[in-house]
Amino acid sequence: MSAGRGPRDGRRWPVAVLGATGAVGQTFIRLLADHPWFAIAEVAASERSAGRAYRDAAQWLEGPLPAAVAGLVVKGCHPDEVLSPIVFSALDSGIAGSAELAFARAGRVVLSNARNHRMDFDVPLVVPDVNADHLAILAGQRAARGWTGALVTNANCAATVAAMALAPLHRAFGLKRVFVTTLQAISGAGYPGVPSLDILGSVIPYIADEEPKIEAELPKILGAIGAGGASIAHATFGVSAQANRVPVEHGHTACLSIECERRPTPEQAEDALRGWTGPDGVRGLPSAPAQPLVIAGAPDRPQARRDVHAGRGMSVTVGRVRPDPLLHLRLVALGHNTVVGAAGASILNAEWLASNGVLGT
Amino acid sequence: MSAGRGPRDGRRWPVAVLGATGAVGQTFIRLLADHPWFAIAEVAASERSAGRAYRDAAQWLEGPLPAAVAGLVVKGCHPDEVLSPIVFSALDSGIAGSAELAFARAGRVVLSNARNHRMDFDVPLVVPDVNADHLAILAGQRAARGWTGALVTNANCAATVAAMALAPLHRAFGLKRVFVTTLQAISGAGYPGVPSLDILGSVIPYIADEEPKIEAELPKILGAIGAGGASIAHATFGVSAQANRVPVEHGHTACLSIECERRPTPEQAEDALRGWTGPDGVRGLPSAPAQPLVIAGAPDRPQARRDVHAGRGMSVTVGRVRPDPLLHLRLVALGHNTVVGAAGASILNAEWLASNGVLGT
Amino acid sequence: MSAGRGPRDGRRWPVAVLGATGAVGQTFIRLLADHPWFAIAEVAASERSAGRAYRDAAQWLEGPLPAAVAGLVVKGCHPDEVLSPIVFSALDSGIAGSAELAFARAGRVVLSNARNHRMDFDVPLVVPDVNADHLAILAGQRAARGWTGALVTNANCAATVAAMALAPLHRAFGLKRVFVTTLQAISGAGYPGVPSLDILGSVIPYIADEEPKIEAELPKILGAIGAGGASIAHATFGVSAQANRVPVEHGHTACLSIECERRPTPEQAEDALRGWTGPDGVRGLPSAPAQPLVIAGAPDRPQARRDVHAGRGMSVTVGRVRPDPLLHLRLVALGHNTVVGAAGASILNAEWLASNGVLGT
Amino acid sequence: MSAGRGPRDGRRWPVAVLGATGAVGQTFIRLLADHPWFAIAEVAASERSAGRAYRDAAQWLEGPLPAAVAGLVVKGCHPDEVLSPIVFSALDSGIAGSAELAFARAGRVVLSNARNHRMDFDVPLVVPDVNADHLAILAGQRAARGWTGALVTNANCAATVAAMALAPLHRAFGLKRVFVTTLQAISGAGYPGVPSLDILGSVIPYIADEEPKIEAELPKILGAIGAGGASIAHATFGVSAQANRVPVEHGHTACLSIECERRPTPEQAEDALRGWTGPDGVRGLPSAPAQPLVIAGAPDRPQARRDVHAGRGMSVTVGRVRPDPLLHLRLVALGHNTVVGAAGASILNAEWLASNGVLGT
Repeated sequence: MSAGRGPRDGRRWPVAVLGATGAVGQTFIRLLADHPWFAIAEVAASERSAGRAYRDAAQWLEGPLPAAVAGLVVKGCHPDEVLSPIVFSALDSGIAGSAELAFARAGRVVLSNARNHRMDFDVPLVVPDVNADHLAILAGQRAARGWTGALVTNANCAATVAAMALAPLHRAFGLKRVFVTTLQAISGAGYPGVPSLDILGSVIPYIADEEPKIEAELPKILGAIGAGGASIAHATFGVSAQANRVPVEHGHTACLSIECERRPTPEQAEDALRGWTGPDGVRGLPSAPAQPLVIAGAPDRPQARRDVHAGRGMSVTVGRVRPDPLLHLRLVALGHNTVVGAAGASILNAEWLASNGVLGT
Repeated sequence: MSAGRGPRDGRRWPVAVLGATGAVGQTFIRLLADHPWFAIAEVAASERSAGRAYRDAAQWLEGPLPAAVAGLVVKGCHPDEVLSPIVFSALDSGIAGSAELAFARAGRVVLSNARNHRMDFDVPLVVPDVNADHLAILAGQRAARGWTGALVTNANCAATVAAMALAPLHRAFGLKRVFVTTLQAISGAGYPGVPSLDILGSVIPYIADEEPKIEAELPKILGAIGAGGASIAHATFGVSAQANRVPVEHGHTACLSIECERRPTPEQAEDALRGWTGPDGVRGLPSAPAQPLVIAGAPDRPQARRDVHAGRGMSVTVGRVRPDPLLHLRLVALGHNTVVGAAGASILNAEWLASNGVLGT
Repeated sequence: MSAGRGPRDGRRWPVAVLGATGAVGQTFIRLLADHPWFAIAEVAASERSAGRAYRDAAQWLEGPLPAAVAGLVVKGCHPDEVLSPIVFSALDSGIAGSAELAFARAGRVVLSNARNHRMDFDVPLVVPDVNADHLAILAGQRAARGWTGALVTNANCAATVAAMALAPLHRAFGLKRVFVTTLQAISGAGYPGVPSLDILGSVIPYIADEEPKIEAELPKILGAIGAGGASIAHATFGVSAQANRVPVEHGHTACLSIECERRPTPEQAEDALRGWTGPDGVRGLPSAPAQPLVIAGAPDRPQARRDVHAGRGMSVTVGRVRPDPLLHLRLVALGHNTVVGAAGASILNAEWLASNGVLGT
Repeated sequence: MSAGRGPRDGRRWPVAVLGATGAVGQTFIRLLADHPWFAIAEVAASERSAGRAYRDAAQWLEGPLPAAVAGLVVKGCHPDEVLSPIVFSALDSGIAGSAELAFARAGRVVLSNARNHRMDFDVPLVVPDVNADHLAILAGQRAARGWTGALVTNANCAATVAAMALAPLHRAFGLKRVFVTTLQAISGAGYPGVPSLDILGSVIPYIADEEPKIEAELPKILGAIGAGGASIAHATFGVSAQANRVPVEHGHTACLSIECERRPTPEQAEDALRGWTGPDGVRGLPSAPAQPLVIAGAPDRPQARRDVHAGRGMSVTVGRVRPDPLLHLRLVALGHNTVVGAAGASILNAEWLASNGVLGT
């Protein structure tokens, strides 16, 4: 097994972060700061920030700003300016679509957190501890698109949390129908994001465009590589999502009701969850948590603040697995929306590609 | 129509509040403070408080303590001490069961907020703007129990909010299945209730005993008076509930997915909601809101803080009526858990009884 | 005494609100909605909003949007467009300076919530329950400026809360030094204002430009009409202010340490606070609270959420009057920053002018 | 210099935690879990918990429960049951007084977080990065008390934060008067502690007994070893404290106004703060942060959530150093109340004792 294989000679791959000044971009930088395989060589953002030192261009939000990045000059988001072979994209969807294509066409491996290309048939949509194996369609992508680069996406943050909890159940029992109601943290909206007068001591039962994303992405994430090996055959279960914003800093909670092909008992479901070890080649990668899924030990867990840091934000915690009076099972899942649900997933995808030789040596 | 008919000669009925020092008891006192028909004559609580002035026995939580109550001496919860003919019970379920029976046996009209007798076959479980007509089974209750008193319950706070939104849809389209995920305010847990270290900036995906209550109560509330007129025939739809505690002071949010006998369009559903005027005899009562249901005017409403005070806390606000990819409709409802969801409902039930001559003249 | 004297024939004065779409403008509209003396005839805002119906131009934040205003067409902030004789200004300081002067020059009575002209020597800076008598310098203002209009300002929201608590102490014991540390609500920053990621579960120990305003305004508010009657002689005490933003919706808390000319005991100070009835002619005005100052009845009060609505937001609650180990006294004051601290003060100033014949009949 | 010297042969000293099930006790356990010098050998708590496995006796609040502690049987708080030579006390003040004395008399080194003995003349009150040198009076304590044990206290959490910021200023410029207003986190009140209905979206301007503690402890912490070497001569500056509870999880903010013997400029004060390296022998200890004081880099810092983890909770962040209009300087300090302000300080004190040979080898 190849897991854990980094760059051959101890050097680190130079990487770029696009959209580096925003909230997701900052999470990329925080998670990459001491990465054993990747070194942030370039940061890029909108023209407004370009040319300024990163420390001046970004309003840094959380923890200390890594010294190695503070002095980098912010570049524009063009492949002739940004030269790193590996590119993490935290771009807004307004510009991510064309910018990411330009980088892939220029031969770069693009790991995107943006929604624009997630549903493209030849673009893998990967929650690494669910479907890292989908990255195998990149060979087909290269052939079809005629580029030497690659375009990989990770999923919507709420879809990611749900997918992590659903994957073992889908594999073991076959999902037929999924109802999911989410309680999502404010950090999912970026910065400045949600005004405090809207959310302090309140709930907003609406997040623009979120429900369709969850409903569309889950069947793709839980799908399988199609005949020909160049695209994903979506799973056929149906999803109904309701998304709420709650006054929580980090951590999306998902309340799930599911129907399966084969009805599991709660004990069988917990066994499937507990036994999940993720796809081949993920365990042992630098950002992979020891356990992709943590089973909550108390009936009132997972709780956003207490469980969000499980696996340094890369594990999803699942609890309250119980029968559903109308379907088969109910359960609650919680994950860190900006780590496993965003930047952390992108980085783990890159590690998988690295350890499988896709980034070269 | 009898609505609006209070005591004949302008006097007010003397009423007692049991469990008067707790959070729900205080809400009763606040809502009854300037009531045109009822005057708080007695307050009662546990032995620990009995004998002390109310102002000393209660840690008053919200708004000014009504002067007329501050000086009342707290009595014990026994019908030989508390003599008022109308009794509002905010007792804990640990003692409500027997105490309320004792008062009813002693000829008092008991309006209970406790869960103990809600599911008794001859006890009406009433959300007044949904099923005040169920109060007609009290004649049968008196006959069966052999008392001249009465025992009326109102529903669980989260069940109330859901029932208000579901009633028009059930009447118009026939409910078959209801999935409801709630985001419930901290005031629902009483005082001291939820520790701040548990809920500040977090979510607790569990409220003890809440889900079974919601699942059991909704079909009774939306049922009909049975053959013989002395009990309620439950509605036959199924309910799956998931309950969450969120850092909101007042206001329970319910995210609903429903399947009906006859599939409505969102427009038809909104029309049914908008046209709902409640049961006969409720409109015009002192605590009845002008509109039992308010349709939210923006796609991101209802919001707990902005909409909780609709109809002085007696209206439920409904929004986001939209198709469900798996069932028929999704919608969001919000209501004030301690007003329409608790003390306010009890008081409105008492008003209905008064205006229908059940309290005498 | 003239208090309570409104327009002669029962008609209401037409008034305009400038900056009507913002957070303070909305508070003006909410407080004026059912005003017995004033009727909102016009709303004005920036060019971006002008020409649109108010309901479409404003993102309404709190409570129901008054129907009479919803349909008004938003005008530009120019005296040739906005014709009402009385003008409430909620303009941003970026444009308030010149716009308010233009209205005053055009003969209008301008009641401004903006900071621009507060410290002008001939402009009264009025917290009505402290120094409504300062409005008498308007005669001198008219003479000096050569206009028939008037320009009246109310104070910074935090300065207002402190001034209310300090006024009785200054009158009785003569202030020498005031240390004030504030804990200010998010609504003081307007909308969208403070990002939730900055303030949820946190404190920001800085509010731009706030401390100098508090330090400069308090001595003017607590000053006296100077020789000649056309300006204010500032009080001579010194102020040191520290301002913090806290995750509270409404209600500024001020922790005060004071030194006086004549050292009072806490009991003497409480007596002075309790006995304060405000300047002549304020009690009985429509927006004047029954008690300008409320003395908190418990050692852990005033608390933002529990006491902010005292006197419908027009009273300031004072508590914890106790000796100071270094100076004379410590105390805590709390008031509603957008009501008594902003729009409510402006409206009460207008009522005082009305009842004193300054608005004509 | 002895810093960094642990147990001679790589073994770890066995330690006990008294009051282990409470919030502070849990923080001790969390911080000691991977300690290089100390190993938790025993946990003790009230009789109610004694005899049960720790995992069952404690409601664990934050992060994962260390496996090595989960299975320990909880003992009673008596020196004949608890045998470890080093004892960390997180006992409530109701029982800490006598229990800690009993352990010291039995020859144990007691590091107490309780307030009971802080002001005893021969008991060091130590914020390690301020006055670890005060631990030298333990020799005198042993002589005077006739025991071979030791009793060491750390300070009130808010006093600690203030002391850290004041120490360099006191040494450089001599403090004369200190006004301090605190905004304190809910974790300072333990668990269940502050009810959410009291603090969510609100401020409580009162913490029982807190202000006298801050006022009394600061002059002792910043005092010097007295003549004879067996007691502390308190510093002579005066303190006035106002304490507020705010809806923040961790992190006490202190707003300070100070007067000095020699007036410093803000630049001189910042230089003194920046140059502070703590007492001899602290740097390099396992729990000592690299920098005891961090100077905030932005005008709106320190902020509770963003800066509370500086130095893994052992650094205090200082910002907004600026002139005071009435005294000399104003500044804001923030520190983690349960780490540097409680358990972390106790542990660092123990490390200092260890590295100075007081714990034996």
